[in-house]
Amino acid sequence: MIPDELTKGQFDTVYNVLSLAIAAQLFTAIFLLAAQPRVLQRYRQALVISAIVCGIAAYHYFRIFDSFKKAFVSDAPGGESVYKQAIGESFNEGYRYVDWLLTVPLLLMELVVVLALARKLQASLLWRLIPASALMIALGYPGEISGDTTTRLIWGTLSTIPFLYILYVLFVELTRSLDRQSPTVRMTVSRMRILLFASWGVYPISYLLPVIGGDGPVAWVSKQGAYSVADILAKCLYGLLIYRIARLKSFSDEKSFAKDEGKEDLVEAKP
Amino acid sequence: MIPDELTKGQFDTVYNVLSLAIAAQLFTAIFLLAAQPRVLQRYRQALVISAIVCGIAAYHYFRIFDSFKKAFVSDAPGGESVYKQAIGESFNEGYRYVDWLLTVPLLLMELVVVLALARKLQASLLWRLIPASALMIALGYPGEISGDTTTRLIWGTLSTIPFLYILYVLFVELTRSLDRQSPTVRMTVSRMRILLFASWGVYPISYLLPVIGGDGPVAWVSKQGAYSVADILAKCLYGLLIYRIARLKSFSDEKSFAKDEGKEDLVEAKP
Repeated sequence: MIPDELTKGQFDTVYNVLSLAIAAQLFTAIFLLAAQPRVLQRYRQALVISAIVCGIAAYHYFRIFDSFKKAFVSDAPGGESVYKQAIGESFNEGYRYVDWLLTVPLLLMELVVVLALARKLQASLLWRLIPASALMIALGYPGEISGDTTTRLIWGTLSTIPFLYILYVLFVELTRSLDRQSPTVRMTVSRMRILLFASWGVYPISYLLPVIGGDGPVAWVSKQGAYSVADILAKCLYGLLIYRIARLKSFSDEKSFAKDEGKEDLVEAKP
Repeated sequence: MIPDELTKGQFDTVYNVLSLAIAAQLFTAIFLLAAQPRVLQRYRQALVISAIVCGIAAYHYFRIFDSFKKAFVSDAPGGESVYKQAIGESFNEGYRYVDWLLTVPLLLMELVVVLALARKLQASLLWRLIPASALMIALGYPGEISGDTTTRLIWGTLSTIPFLYILYVLFVELTRSLDRQSPTVRMTVSRMRILLFASWGVYPISYLLPVIGGDGPVAWVSKQGAYSVADILAKCLYGLLIYRIARLKSFSDEKSFAKDEGKEDLVEAKP
């Protein structure tokens, strides 16, 4: 639940961490768009999708930031006192779900698209990962907006089913199709799966926080911080790892491109 | 500490210097993106990173500017009187730390990337410089937001340890790897290190100002001016020196490119 009061330190911490998320996501989006010529044509679509994901996330953080700034007010000069909930303004946590509903399926798409798998395999992975991820977010929402513990647990459990299915597809099925990738690409994909798993793990923990009794301003401020850091890792760092895979594959596909980019030492033989 | 009152002259000075920083950083970013075709392909990634750094800094100065404008208000027509702290609005110095947390590691990355060093050497430098610089900023923050002198000194001292380590890597280790660069490139790198050292030096001085008794509006206005000038030098001038290195190296790498750019007289033999 949203706390009635925040100290100035708590207010400033949430404020700065939300602004950090905006800056990181907006400028990762710009970087990925500007860096397109740094990979071969065939990998640019994956970069554009990554940039769009970061852009969508930045948009939602602008909204969350504004919503937060209006939802808590101080009545002292220089804001040197407690911040109370403003009259007629509420902090809208729903923006996060809207964001995830759009970005989480796209994050899985990025990963599949950049690997340039065979057409049938790619279609089969996407047709399972994208609906499953949209379902995972949609099923979590009714629990998130409910104050009732039982409701929270029921929807949370339902949402876990597609989550486990996604993990199965990523860790079992995708692994089988990695045999045609170079060692460094395989290693980067492994790291990205762990990054997804670790950063997505923050969401169920934050979700369960009110259930296990973690309430009050400190828990709430920590939750905002954890969400923001998880979003920065799952969108920006993830997008930069997509860029790395696209670079490595470009160099291995065309040695002359690697030479023009001054990266002949990054050319790897495919197995 | 943020002063309770500013004269109109003091208010206008901070206002104008913050706007100067926005203009310098935003348009250096645009210049660096637009100037990409003026260097060979292999140096464009360094230019894009430099542009992103200037863009992130410009974003934060927009935020700082807005925060400042709302934090001090005058109640006279034409603003012709003292400016007092506004009710419920505070000037947020935290934006600066959020900015540095993102930009300082990227500044060090630019320098290493533009030199096009061997892969292993580059990785080794980046794996040490980037975590050290993030640590330096993160350790400074708790001291900056504290009003207590002892707290300020403890965190300031802790933050100095990674700073000294960065200086060691830049001035000792990096120097060893410069033997394959042309004389002008070596000289430019030397200048950039001194620029980093001199402009970063402004930050600890501003940090210690309240400790050595420099308080009150004049010290505070000077601090805002010093931060802004240091940021312009460390981001814009630094980014333009990166551009200069990329140009010189492009000309030396390909004489035909130097000819097309009308700069045959800048071709240097590599040692």
